[in-house]
Amino acid sequence: MHVDIGNALDAEPRLTRAALERLDERVADAHDRIERGRADAAHGYAALNLPDTVDPDAIRAAVDRFDDPAAVLTVGIGGSALGAATLTDALGGDIDAYVLDNVDPAGVDALLDSLPLSETVVHVVSRSGTTAETLANFLVVRETMADAGVDWTERTIVTTGPEGNLRALAETHDLPALDVPAGVPGRFSALSTVALPVAALAGHDLDALLAGARDEADRLAGSLFDSPAYAYGATCYALERRGAGVNAMMPYAESLDSFAEWFAQLWAESLGKDAIGQTPVRALGATDQHSQLQLYRAGPRDKLVTLVRPRERPDRSIPETDLEGLSYLGGGSLGALIDAEFEATEASLAAANCPNVRIEIDCVDERGVGELLYGMEAACVLYGELAGVETFTQPAVEWGKRAARGLLGGGDFEEAAAVGEKRSLVID
Amino acid sequence: MHVDIGNALDAEPRLTRAALERLDERVADAHDRIERGRADAAHGYAALNLPDTVDPDAIRAAVDRFDDPAAVLTVGIGGSALGAATLTDALGGDIDAYVLDNVDPAGVDALLDSLPLSETVVHVVSRSGTTAETLANFLVVRETMADAGVDWTERTIVTTGPEGNLRALAETHDLPALDVPAGVPGRFSALSTVALPVAALAGHDLDALLAGARDEADRLAGSLFDSPAYAYGATCYALERRGAGVNAMMPYAESLDSFAEWFAQLWAESLGKDAIGQTPVRALGATDQHSQLQLYRAGPRDKLVTLVRPRERPDRSIPETDLEGLSYLGGGSLGALIDAEFEATEASLAAANCPNVRIEIDCVDERGVGELLYGMEAACVLYGELAGVETFTQPAVEWGKRAARGLLGGGDFEEAAAVGEKRSLVID
Repeated sequence: MHVDIGNALDAEPRLTRAALERLDERVADAHDRIERGRADAAHGYAALNLPDTVDPDAIRAAVDRFDDPAAVLTVGIGGSALGAATLTDALGGDIDAYVLDNVDPAGVDALLDSLPLSETVVHVVSRSGTTAETLANFLVVRETMADAGVDWTERTIVTTGPEGNLRALAETHDLPALDVPAGVPGRFSALSTVALPVAALAGHDLDALLAGARDEADRLAGSLFDSPAYAYGATCYALERRGAGVNAMMPYAESLDSFAEWFAQLWAESLGKDAIGQTPVRALGATDQHSQLQLYRAGPRDKLVTLVRPRERPDRSIPETDLEGLSYLGGGSLGALIDAEFEATEASLAAANCPNVRIEIDCVDERGVGELLYGMEAACVLYGELAGVETFTQPAVEWGKRAARGLLGGGDFEEAAAVGEKRSLVID
Repeated sequence: MHVDIGNALDAEPRLTRAALERLDERVADAHDRIERGRADAAHGYAALNLPDTVDPDAIRAAVDRFDDPAAVLTVGIGGSALGAATLTDALGGDIDAYVLDNVDPAGVDALLDSLPLSETVVHVVSRSGTTAETLANFLVVRETMADAGVDWTERTIVTTGPEGNLRALAETHDLPALDVPAGVPGRFSALSTVALPVAALAGHDLDALLAGARDEADRLAGSLFDSPAYAYGATCYALERRGAGVNAMMPYAESLDSFAEWFAQLWAESLGKDAIGQTPVRALGATDQHSQLQLYRAGPRDKLVTLVRPRERPDRSIPETDLEGLSYLGGGSLGALIDAEFEATEASLAAANCPNVRIEIDCVDERGVGELLYGMEAACVLYGELAGVETFTQPAVEWGKRAARGLLGGGDFEEAAAVGEKRSLVID
């Protein structure tokens, strides 16, 4: 992963090289804490050890029993789903990969109707085995398979914690079951048993994914000027402190659209606490130049734009044309066009004094994606250290979970009662 | 459209009912300006007349020549694509609808490979006929069809301005051609010839879409307390003035995911200027409760969350279960679950003092979607009036367009030269 922070300096909000150099002492301290956390396999920090602790052979063995599936369906939500979506969208693969990560009845029905159920592998992921959305969806999937005459016990694999419903179910029905890694929050679990089974089913090279991640791990160092991941994390932190409350993640590759969504969870849930934390915004180049760029260039100076691209990509030539004013396109290629737009957008943001960072990987392949995901995770952990937040918890989501359970009659009625006290001012 | 701003008041940032009542005088003035603009069919304001000025018969007639297509492909970008995506994602339809709105070679190839080209209608949309991405993609689509032995002139319809490449092409090859509406910026053109041909091909009721929009138009009034659209626009404006620089648009319906993207363009490109403008963030309920909610509840107090849902939706029952701790789900339904999560999230934001607005439509059908799109457009126009920005222009995107053209050898070399002056500080 190559990180270029040149355009993040001396823009607005103003971050100077001297300020980053002063911050570097704190980066060194934070790196020490991170390394101690990794050495102790402490909660959260253990995620940064995954390239060495995950066992790709066990994952391959667990999915080996499925003969030539046509599709794989991940049933999970949040960190239990976004990793798989990120890997399969980025890398394509031999089979169709779907995610069931919402409980919208119309969406669930449409997806299940479109699946070749008898040739689909279902991967159910929930650490606790009680996540309401995931278990409700799994119950529906199981029933749909049974109704279609498909033996769900032959087509299901689970990844879960040591106890709970999914573990019990796996034992009862002799399902292949993998362990969620200990000490790894869901949003840091893409490079583990949570998402890698899907990558294995899709025919991807798990070893190359982990090697890419390991490369990035090897570059963590006591100075942000020596580590791409820390350079990014420290720059984001320093810019947020100076007023860049928004971080627009804008990959120039369709296949990295889900990566931006994965990043948004990583950033929001890890850093959004104690009244601080950058708001991640998902964008897509070149498309969103025609949607969001006006705001980024001319709106409030509260933004960092992160531009991501592969250095190499497959290409497609543009036919020669005599259309008026378009001869410059003909004989070129779509790849040259999107790369020109990338550089033009980067320069146009710089010309408008909007700080931006360029992140490049060599190629959207297993190694590049491994680098990118690990790099962003390490950047996030460093940012959390510098900001002094509890990077690895998400306490603010509990209230709503209890309220929803109460509304459905499952307990926790105190929060549910508060729902009934809603203040309304309806205009219709 | 039903708008409930009760939870937007007395939260943080703090907006009081009294402040809204004071603002209402300015809403009355703004409404007068908007009505005058509509009466004069002035640039931009003309968009709010579309329910009366668009001719659905002409649109239906233009697409009638295509016998039973299996798919429709919109080739456009920004406002020329997002309206069609929004309508077909929301409403489903009889045929598969795709959008080619990026120039990523891998993405273009994958999409074209998957299309039944001989049964696909291609709708090319560009006002000028020179939009680089759209024309490059169209040249590639045309070549791909020719290579597959498909006569592209039999399968193409264009929507464009009175002059330019696409108009000339339509005349040369006798293609069905529709006019982009005069005075209507792309991001306000969903309810026009720009997106409705695709809705017609998908079998949707254009009259019901326009009737929904007309209903909302009829409710524009000189007080925000009498008009749902203005209530929303004024609340967003007043909250931004007080520090809510972020507006998270979070529909609780998978089929409205593209709507959130359409809204993001509407908001960003219309209001993001002169160093002001709310940053739109796309979210999706219930999924993003497991991704963004931590930040919304516990992060900086710079956010408004807009929760959107249909009052009625198709449902799917959840099978009874004896799984531990989950009996409360069994025998219920996914619809009840997602609605409980909606209300729980709304209350959890309120309990954390995060301002939020509830927007409901009766149903995700033509009428409801017509109301929603028109309502958001009118809200945006009102916000622009209150903020004193040029709602209907997007000057900040021109620099990058010129730079990209220059990099590809098409002129405008001054900006291209600036691209070459990039300041780099690479860590890799």
